[in-house]
Order: sequence, then structure tokens, then C-alpha cells
Amino acid sequence: MKHLKTMLALAAMTSLTPPILAQNNIIDQQAASMARDKGLSDNVGYDIIEGLTTEIGPRQAGTEAEARARIWSIAKLKALGFTNARIEEYEMPTWVRGEESASIISPYPQNLAITALGNSASTGEDGLTADIVYFPTLADLIAANDADVKGKIVFVSHAMKATQDGSSYGAYGPARFVGPNIAAKKGAAAIVIRSAGTDYHRNPHTGNTNFEEGVAPIPAGALSIPDAENLERMLARSKNVKMALKLTPKNIGMQVSGNVVADIQGSNPKLGMIVIACHLDSWDLGTGAIDDAAGCGIITAAAKIIADSGKQPKRSIRLLWAGAEEVGVWGGRDYALKHAADNHSLAMESDFGAGKIWAVDFTLADSAKDVSQAIIRSLAPLGIVPRRQAAGGGADVGAIIAAQKLAIIDLQQDGTKYFDLHHTPDDTFDKVDKSEVQQNIAAWAATLSIIANYEGELKPE
Amino acid sequence: MKHLKTMLALAAMTSLTPPILAQNNIIDQQAASMARDKGLSDNVGYDIIEGLTTEIGPRQAGTEAEARARIWSIAKLKALGFTNARIEEYEMPTWVRGEESASIISPYPQNLAITALGNSASTGEDGLTADIVYFPTLADLIAANDADVKGKIVFVSHAMKATQDGSSYGAYGPARFVGPNIAAKKGAAAIVIRSAGTDYHRNPHTGNTNFEEGVAPIPAGALSIPDAENLERMLARSKNVKMALKLTPKNIGMQVSGNVVADIQGSNPKLGMIVIACHLDSWDLGTGAIDDAAGCGIITAAAKIIADSGKQPKRSIRLLWAGAEEVGVWGGRDYALKHAADNHSLAMESDFGAGKIWAVDFTLADSAKDVSQAIIRSLAPLGIVPRRQAAGGGADVGAIIAAQKLAIIDLQQDGTKYFDLHHTPDDTFDKVDKSEVQQNIAAWAATLSIIANYEGELKPE
Repeated sequence: MKHLKTMLALAAMTSLTPPILAQNNIIDQQAASMARDKGLSDNVGYDIIEGLTTEIGPRQAGTEAEARARIWSIAKLKALGFTNARIEEYEMPTWVRGEESASIISPYPQNLAITALGNSASTGEDGLTADIVYFPTLADLIAANDADVKGKIVFVSHAMKATQDGSSYGAYGPARFVGPNIAAKKGAAAIVIRSAGTDYHRNPHTGNTNFEEGVAPIPAGALSIPDAENLERMLARSKNVKMALKLTPKNIGMQVSGNVVADIQGSNPKLGMIVIACHLDSWDLGTGAIDDAAGCGIITAAAKIIADSGKQPKRSIRLLWAGAEEVGVWGGRDYALKHAADNHSLAMESDFGAGKIWAVDFTLADSAKDVSQAIIRSLAPLGIVPRRQAAGGGADVGAIIAAQKLAIIDLQQDGTKYFDLHHTPDDTFDKVDKSEVQQNIAAWAATLSIIANYEGELKPE
Repeated sequence: MKHLKTMLALAAMTSLTPPILAQNNIIDQQAASMARDKGLSDNVGYDIIEGLTTEIGPRQAGTEAEARARIWSIAKLKALGFTNARIEEYEMPTWVRGEESASIISPYPQNLAITALGNSASTGEDGLTADIVYFPTLADLIAANDADVKGKIVFVSHAMKATQDGSSYGAYGPARFVGPNIAAKKGAAAIVIRSAGTDYHRNPHTGNTNFEEGVAPIPAGALSIPDAENLERMLARSKNVKMALKLTPKNIGMQVSGNVVADIQGSNPKLGMIVIACHLDSWDLGTGAIDDAAGCGIITAAAKIIADSGKQPKRSIRLLWAGAEEVGVWGGRDYALKHAADNHSLAMESDFGAGKIWAVDFTLADSAKDVSQAIIRSLAPLGIVPRRQAAGGGADVGAIIAAQKLAIIDLQQDGTKYFDLHHTPDDTFDKVDKSEVQQNIAAWAATLSIIANYEGELKPE
């Protein structure tokens, strides 16, 4: 019964939402609740996702489409009332897709759905034909003798499973991240992998792969999961399966990419600003709705709720719509370089789709415990639970976090369905659920309301 | 309580499964139950679907792949013990897909996922570029002035909804069946439709369209549903949307297609045989798993259960794995021509996917009421209900039914998800649920057990 009594006492406190004293700082729980509840009926976030996917669509880093997206973004951020909206350009090496096809030549001729992985080499216009050598897992490829791989098309068919926290990407992603490099070092002619994804549609999942310095890239593609399973069935019947592969991507050298940055000015410039990030670039196959127009919609709508609250926040809030995340986080690194002298205190990022937030993680100063408690209290009505693990930030805020040892809050989205869509043609606006986006915005707005008005130390010791 | 008593009495009768006397015919309800229960653990049907999709894959009518599929089918049917397995060839005009792409040129440049409809004209290698003229429904296109359509790319964006019985195909399919012909007559440069489908994947739905004699075909394509909705959003912003379209299909003239036919010999040759049909050809985009390897697996496994029952059936059962259904039911018509002199009594067809059977319809002689009652009783444990509507048969048995006024039984499959996959790249083996296939086979085996051993008149008066 003791536990129940504590719960009831806490509930009573919450419903009264009194100002809570924390280290000479008043946390206005009621303002956070108001920001949260505005988020639940927000239209700004969903409209950004709709606009970016409709008016721009795919926006691969370094291409003309990404440049159009930056112009679109500046206009949108200015129209929403953010100050100092600007483009910060940089250059980066750019790889673009060519033609792509794969077919089984024998013993069971038919076409397979394939897409090239970013940084794949070209097969040349004539393509290449070779026997398949099959490895059920990446570990099997690693253990293979070079002689068994040499001159062949390696097929790695790991089967990724869905997880709420996306941890399966860490477990199964390496077949994409490093599989091609390993196959290249063993002398493979090319590699095809089962897509790092969890759907059953004829849409392969692209994404970058990287070859070590000194390793000559080989053609590297991902088969859709139905096609990978079809190929597995063929290999169960015959050890002599021959594939014709054509991938003609190109490296087009250094191209212009850029970040879009905008601010809400805080009332106390001495307090380190909060940087909130999403990424503007997207893979070319889909329209980048969940990856990551959703993130840009969510963080921007939440920040606007703070800007429109009638009370200037104490800390500045900086929006970073980063460029070139997909192809190596060029935007995040450029931001950290160009803004090394700026005073940041805390970073947050939204880049895991449009699904509901289910958990919150913190990496804050010990002295800021009341901040995390106030946030947990604010998020509870949204079905969000605290976890006992440190926040990690995200790709685009990684460099600035490392450089300035920032505090971090992660609002963890449910990723159970994320890898159905990730890096596929299916990443389109229709996959976005408005009420889930609003739940995200509500959580972000409540969190920003609390941290932007907190004057104590946020950075962990 | 009267109703409950009737039910209990019926249940008692069923559990005893006594022979039921019908017009001098004994219906062996127990044999039907045994056939049904064998179906529930059948492997033959699922293996056929697996084999055809793995070893052949897509098998478009008139192509070399369909010819390979016929050879595969003969070997399979012989191995399963069917007699007189043979190929019956015919010729038919053949249309094959070329390159296909669509992109919005202005005001919101991006690519859209498109596929050509069967019988589409070619845009030529250079493609064509024109303004879109938008019609939310086919009725709007029909009502349009020629002047508003002339030289433009018509876009018809009807939104098909899923139904259990597939009736939405009748309601929304005409935009594909006749929309291109109507647009051509009004002088359109081309037509793109929202796919006749119910999914949200970037996989357009192909399928035949037909141009009237004397109407010059125009290029005709289907957009995936996410792309059709994206185009609708663009059109909501601007009346001036320009599309570049490239479709380069070709008519390659008369080609060889063919039916695969095999038999189970009945003990009484005077009784009209039962013809059971599926179709072997499939659209080129998927591997034809649900359309219609599933049908061939289901009917064949059920027939084999009868053949293996230890008792020769009285009526012969003929399997028709028809060719060229998708492109105009050439196989079904050829069968009716070549077998006009054969004595048929009843026809059944499986061509609505791999989903569970939920209803049964009959068109039988009035005197055969005990047959339908026995079948209903046999199917009840499978969750199958009788409907008060006449059976209609199917595409491939349509011609022989009409020629010989055959009795018909329709085992109606649940089509709620069928139009997610129909005619798309996503029609692949992984979409097939083995237990649902087994439920189909169980229903077919029970039904065949009853009708193949019934000596009375089946044909309706």
C-alpha cells in the first residue's frame, strides 16, 4: 500500500501543478502542460511533411533537389517566424544512382528487384555475370576462404527482425555497412545482400556502404526481401545459381550541400542554447517522408509552440535542418565546425520516423534532476516512460555534442514499423499518421518548454 | 429453443454421418469429411505454388517463360499421378512491356512510379511531355468536353476500396478497363490512372485495357497509389502540372500460348466430367503467386486427394491449367473450342488468390438439392457459409459453361487483401499463408468428393 500512497500523492501534486523549486530555478509545469496540449492539435508539423514530400519529394545530398529543398526550407522557416534563417553551404563527394537490374540466368531464369547501395561501384554498361556464393549471415562471409569467394557474386541473406527501439539495425545493419568491404577484400566480383529491412514488398532498401581506404569498391546491391527469399529457395535446390547484375552508379565529385539553420532568440544570451536537429536530405528512392521530413516537421512545430507561447524562452533554441546525413553526416560535422564558438548547452534530434514516442532518456547534470523529473511528469499523459539508460543524441548532433560535451535528451520513437520503409521507395507521405506526429510534437513542446526556461546547469559534469 | 433443438439434431446427424439417400444416389458424407480433413494437412498445394514461383517466376502469356511453365506443369502433373497430361497450344496476339517512367516536370519536379497497362501504345523512345488534366472519377472523364482533354495527359484518380467479395473491382476497375479508350476517343495524348488496387506501396498495378476497333491506342499507365495521391496534392496547389511520360511497350504479333490439361479417369464414362480450372500465365511484374499459382496448387491438391482416396471417383475430373487468362482468356476459349465434343457436367475455378474460403454458391439442377446440402454440411466446419445467390464460374471456365450449360459451384475466397497484390510486383510467394491454402484445399476436396461420386443430374434445367 505504501507504493499506492506515493502514487496518489504524486498524482495530487501533478494535478495542482505547483511551481517546483529546483536549484534557484522555478520549473513551470503548467506552461509545459499547455505547450504539450497545443502539440496535440498541431497542424504545422504535418503540413511541413506534406509540403516537403509534395513540392520537393526526394532530395539526395549534393543534388539539385537538395538545393531546391534548402530554398523551400528557408521560405518555410521565415514564414513560421523563425529568425536568422540561413543556408550554410559546404562541399562533399557525391555518388548518384544509375541503372539497376539483377536476374537469375540459370537454372531458374527470372528478374529480381535490386537497388544499388550508396558508394557501390559500377558493373559497367555491360553488367557482369557470375555464380552466386551464398552466406546465410555476415559471420559466414567473414569466416569464408578467399578462394571460395573470388570472382563470384556474394549473397548475404541475414534476416532482420523488427524491434521497438530499432536495435535490430545494429545487429543486422553491418551486412550492409561492412559486408561489401569484406567481400571486396576477399576478391568477390560483386555482392548482393538481403535488404536491411523488415517488410515483404518488392522495394529494396538502399543506404550507404563504405569501402576502406585502399580497397577497390565492388558493385554492391540490396535485393528486396521477397527476392532474397526466392534466391534462397533456388540455392536450396541448386549450388550452381548464376546471376546477371547491372548497376551503373557514378561518383560525380565534390558537390554543394548545405545546412538550414534558424533560431528563436532567448532572453538570456548567456545561457547556452538548445540545438534541435532533423535532416533535410533523403534517399532518392522514396520522398523522404519518415526519413526525415517527419523529424523536421516535429522539431519545428514544437519550437514554434514555444515561440508562440506569449513568453520569450530564456535559452535560445536553434533549429538545424541538416544536409547530407544519409551519405555520411556531412551536415552535422559542418555545423560543429562552423559553430564551434557558439555556446550550446543541450542537443536533441528527431530522426527515427513518424511513430509515437514511447520513452525518454537523459544525459544531464546531476544537479538538473528536477528537470528530468518535470519532463517525465509532463510526458506521462502521452504514454511515455523514462528508461534507466543514458541519452545518446543522434547523427547530426553527434559532432557538436562531442565538441562541447552537451547535455542530451532523447525522445525515443517506436520503431517497430520503421524498417518496413527505411530507405525504400515506400517512404512516402501516406505512411505518416497525423495523430502520431502530434503526439511527438506534444512531447517535444513540453520538453522544450521546461529546458528552454531552466537557468541552471544542464551539461553533465 | 426450437432453433437450438434443430441445431442439436443436425449436429447429431452430422457426427454420425449416415449415408443420405438422394434421387437413387448415395452421398457419402463421411468420405467427404475424410477428404476435407486430408486437405487441412496437405503439402502438395503449397509446394506447387512454391515451385512455380521459384523455378519459373513470372510467366506472361505468349512469352518463353509461359512455355517453360507449361513444361514444368506437365512434369509436375505426371509426377503427381494424373493421366493424359498434355499441352494444347494455340496462338494469340502478344503485347510486351518496354521501358516505363513518369516524372512531374513542373511545378514540383519529381519521379512517379508507373507501369504500362496491357495494350498501351508506346510514347516512342523520346517519350512525351504534356499538361495533366485531372478527373477525380471515370464519370468525370466521360462527362468532359473533348476540347479540355485534347493533347493532354488525362489523370483519373478513382480510389478503390477493399471488399471481401471483390465487388469493388467491378466498381473501380472500369477506369482501367475502358478509361484509356474513352480518353483516346476524346483526343488525349495519354492517360495515367490511379492503380486499381487497395495497397499503399510504390508498386503500380498493371492489367489489360482494351481499345475499340478503329480507336488508335494511346499510351496508358497506372501510377502507384502513393504517387497518385502525391499528384492529387500537386493538383490541389496548381492547375498547371506538366508530366513527362515514357512507355515503350510493343506488340510482337501472334505467339504460341497453350493450356495444360490432365485427368483423373472416372469409373463411369457416361457421367459428364467435372472440369476444374486455374490459370498458369501471370503478369510479368510479380511471380504470380496469388494470381494464380495458388489456384493451380489448390485445385490440383484437392483432385489428388480424390485420386488417392482408395476409391475411383464415378465422374472423371479434368484439370485445366489455362494459358493466357490475363490478356483476354485465350486459354479458356481455346479449351471450349477444342473440347466442344467432350461431355462435361460441372465446372469450378480457383482464381481469387490464396485467402480463405468464406462462402459457397451453387448453380445446380433442382433435383440436386441434396448435393448442395451435403456440401454445405461438409464445409461448415471450415467456417464456410452458403449464400443465396447463383454461382457464376470464372473466366477460364466461362466459355465451356456457356457452350454446355454446365452446373457450377463457386468456393468464394476472402478477397479483402487481394487487391493489395493483384497485378503488382508484390504478388510473390511470401504472401501465401499455408494454412489458408490448406483450408481451400480442404473445401475443394470435400466438394469434389461429393460431386465426383454423385450419379444424378447436376446441370441446371
